[in-house]
Amino acid sequence: MSKAIAPRWSHRHLLGLEDLSPEEIQIILDRAEEFVDLRENQHLKRANLKGKVVVNLFFEPSTRTRTSFGLAAKRLSADTIDFTAGGSSISKGETFIDTAKNIEAMGIDVMVVRHAVPGAPHLLAQHLNCSVINAGDGAHEHPTQGLLDIFTIRKVKGRVKGLTVGLVGDISHSRVARSNIHGLVKMGAKVIVCGPPTLVPATITALGVEVSYRLDDILERCDVVNLLRIQFERQRNGMFPSIHEYALLFGMNSERLRKAKSDILLLAPGPINRGVEITPEVADGPHSAILQQVTNGLAVRMAILDLLCGHSGDER
Amino acid sequence: MSKAIAPRWSHRHLLGLEDLSPEEIQIILDRAEEFVDLRENQHLKRANLKGKVVVNLFFEPSTRTRTSFGLAAKRLSADTIDFTAGGSSISKGETFIDTAKNIEAMGIDVMVVRHAVPGAPHLLAQHLNCSVINAGDGAHEHPTQGLLDIFTIRKVKGRVKGLTVGLVGDISHSRVARSNIHGLVKMGAKVIVCGPPTLVPATITALGVEVSYRLDDILERCDVVNLLRIQFERQRNGMFPSIHEYALLFGMNSERLRKAKSDILLLAPGPINRGVEITPEVADGPHSAILQQVTNGLAVRMAILDLLCGHSGDER
Amino acid sequence: MSKAIAPRWSHRHLLGLEDLSPEEIQIILDRAEEFVDLRENQHLKRANLKGKVVVNLFFEPSTRTRTSFGLAAKRLSADTIDFTAGGSSISKGETFIDTAKNIEAMGIDVMVVRHAVPGAPHLLAQHLNCSVINAGDGAHEHPTQGLLDIFTIRKVKGRVKGLTVGLVGDISHSRVARSNIHGLVKMGAKVIVCGPPTLVPATITALGVEVSYRLDDILERCDVVNLLRIQFERQRNGMFPSIHEYALLFGMNSERLRKAKSDILLLAPGPINRGVEITPEVADGPHSAILQQVTNGLAVRMAILDLLCGHSGDER
Repeated sequence: MSKAIAPRWSHRHLLGLEDLSPEEIQIILDRAEEFVDLRENQHLKRANLKGKVVVNLFFEPSTRTRTSFGLAAKRLSADTIDFTAGGSSISKGETFIDTAKNIEAMGIDVMVVRHAVPGAPHLLAQHLNCSVINAGDGAHEHPTQGLLDIFTIRKVKGRVKGLTVGLVGDISHSRVARSNIHGLVKMGAKVIVCGPPTLVPATITALGVEVSYRLDDILERCDVVNLLRIQFERQRNGMFPSIHEYALLFGMNSERLRKAKSDILLLAPGPINRGVEITPEVADGPHSAILQQVTNGLAVRMAILDLLCGHSGDER
Repeated sequence: MSKAIAPRWSHRHLLGLEDLSPEEIQIILDRAEEFVDLRENQHLKRANLKGKVVVNLFFEPSTRTRTSFGLAAKRLSADTIDFTAGGSSISKGETFIDTAKNIEAMGIDVMVVRHAVPGAPHLLAQHLNCSVINAGDGAHEHPTQGLLDIFTIRKVKGRVKGLTVGLVGDISHSRVARSNIHGLVKMGAKVIVCGPPTLVPATITALGVEVSYRLDDILERCDVVNLLRIQFERQRNGMFPSIHEYALLFGMNSERLRKAKSDILLLAPGPINRGVEITPEVADGPHSAILQQVTNGLAVRMAILDLLCGHSGDER
Repeated sequence: MSKAIAPRWSHRHLLGLEDLSPEEIQIILDRAEEFVDLRENQHLKRANLKGKVVVNLFFEPSTRTRTSFGLAAKRLSADTIDFTAGGSSISKGETFIDTAKNIEAMGIDVMVVRHAVPGAPHLLAQHLNCSVINAGDGAHEHPTQGLLDIFTIRKVKGRVKGLTVGLVGDISHSRVARSNIHGLVKMGAKVIVCGPPTLVPATITALGVEVSYRLDDILERCDVVNLLRIQFERQRNGMFPSIHEYALLFGMNSERLRKAKSDILLLAPGPINRGVEITPEVADGPHSAILQQVTNGLAVRMAILDLLCGHSGDER
């Protein structure tokens, strides 16, 4: 994927935020801005993708992201299919590509792919003529989640550049963290990753972020805190001592909120574990943008679909 | 939910027939009348809900009701999503509401909810801005089934008022029975519930119905008999002695039909157990409206969706 | 189903190629020709089935065929529903028909049926007023697969009549083989079935085909070879000695390809087992039309749906 210099959209695929220039991220955010207002203005549906077919090809279970992509496609008048793959037929790389090529041969325009193996969407992008969107590949990237987080920050704060954003939680295993880091750093934010030492790789500083192991040490400096979801299976693997201790050290609660900036913005890629990453009163309080993130996610995905299907007026 | 006095639709939600006035039930039935003829007139699709999104949020397995709601929404040009929830993530009320609020944040207009816990749709209605339709909450209500039964009676008999309707089967555990009772009594019908004493609570008379434990005692008086589906797991729980004995005492068959009014109308909310609640020749005979009920169900659900989405010309 | 003599479409159902005249097959192929070019011409969607409802009623797991029918219907602006049935409720024939009649009562126009029991779609066709398409009934027929294979042959070779087509693999258990045989023989092709003696019934010659047990014996005469998918469960049943031996004797590979006609056309109803029926380099080589078959399948299914819904200008 070549890095565009002029602020024009020229990619056929969206594989990760690592591949995009700041200008390209801005194109997506600006396009999403148009769509987020659609609902308010009662222009609920657009014909941009009429006659196009968008496939959700998910090799990992998901309802939220899949539904969000499906709805985004329908809002643009595309036809949609869900192709939920069992885990069995993908043990061989060849079969995985065959499956995708067969689906593509049905006349597909965009393939939204989630897969446990990092790089799986990139592999498909090499073999397919249709557009590929990475909807999460292992612990690698989840670019639309990163984009909707950044979009929400920009919408609430008016800017991204110059802000300090804390990413809190299991950084090692989080594709959401990785996409946020790539996007936020490109857009000029200062990123601090924060979590238990077992879940924050020291090498992550290579991505241009600061590392902290105590939320209380960095909280005062943060304009935004993004509370990543704790996956309980990690605890069983001995990655952190107890949910209770995690909540005490890294969870957002009223007491901690009082020490933060008065206009701090709290994000969390759902579904949240109430009482773990965030207490109920804070999750439902004025600083939280959790549900706005979901709403914005639809607009961001509409923007991506629209750009990839060539409605940008640019060459593909 | 406030009870409307003037014959105008003013509800945002449809949670149960207990909450509706006779006039409001009539509004629904009249609106459904318009839609039931759509098909015959080849005006197969209407644009009333274009740009709206209807979600099926089912926490209990269902194909028929879910499909009927989905088709009703599509006929009105809505976009539809199925959000079939596993039973696991709903043990806590908070998570259940979070799930629904997250779905709503995707820009949903109507949420069709089925849940094993009575009152679950009512809880959602308190927390959501979108419309909520109860598609069955435990043994409490299943208002669209009640409405389609009443609609079918009105369509075949020309009226509801003054008719005697027998509800036969497992009254205790039936949300269909409860919605039928509320609706039929409001519409001026006489309702007799009938079943084995173990499955008919004596307290049900508080709802304004007569109780009988022998179908043969009441059959001659009935203009309509609605044969509720027997759920075989009840038998295992010792609620009635044997399927065979149930069929003998409460099943509709040719012999029994001869003792009934010559224009008796037979209803059964499918899927029927042929040879249990009703014998095959009677199910397929001229008194049975079983398949018409299914067809009418689509029209009733279109009417509800249309009314809730504000196409009544009334305030919401 | 009456056999039409004039070249006009007069069937309400598509149950098998055995029932069709050569002229009727030609009508389908010609209609498909119109649809296959839709995509190239960017006229991606047609309104032919607007307001119609197409149901996929699959009693056997399938993603490809189901998706292909669903997309074909959407391309013609139909509404679609998937009604994936568990195997449990179909043990009794009565219940199977009840299920279908209940679905039909929701206002269905076309029911696409896959069932493990040969003749199941024919049974439904007798009981339903809507159109029934057989999407595979046991080892009996899979007419749309046969049609898309024949369509692909005609498209690549310019004709079907006079060609020699080898059908290679498990002939005994293959509904694809049976539909291909009926269609190809009617269209004037010479068909040679070829496979291990345990998987090729001698009685198949009654259908007008030649039988061979060695691919190398017939390869030079073939204009087309259709490599049927091996179902590995057959091997466990002792039907053939080993996958390796099967590949050696009946698999298509580069060496074997050199002995074939220089313009041989290779077909395979996916998903293919690479290295078994066909080696990767041949599957991806210039003689293979595997992905074109998938693309053509969409056009053929659009043609069938369009014809059954009466857009042929003919009586039904």
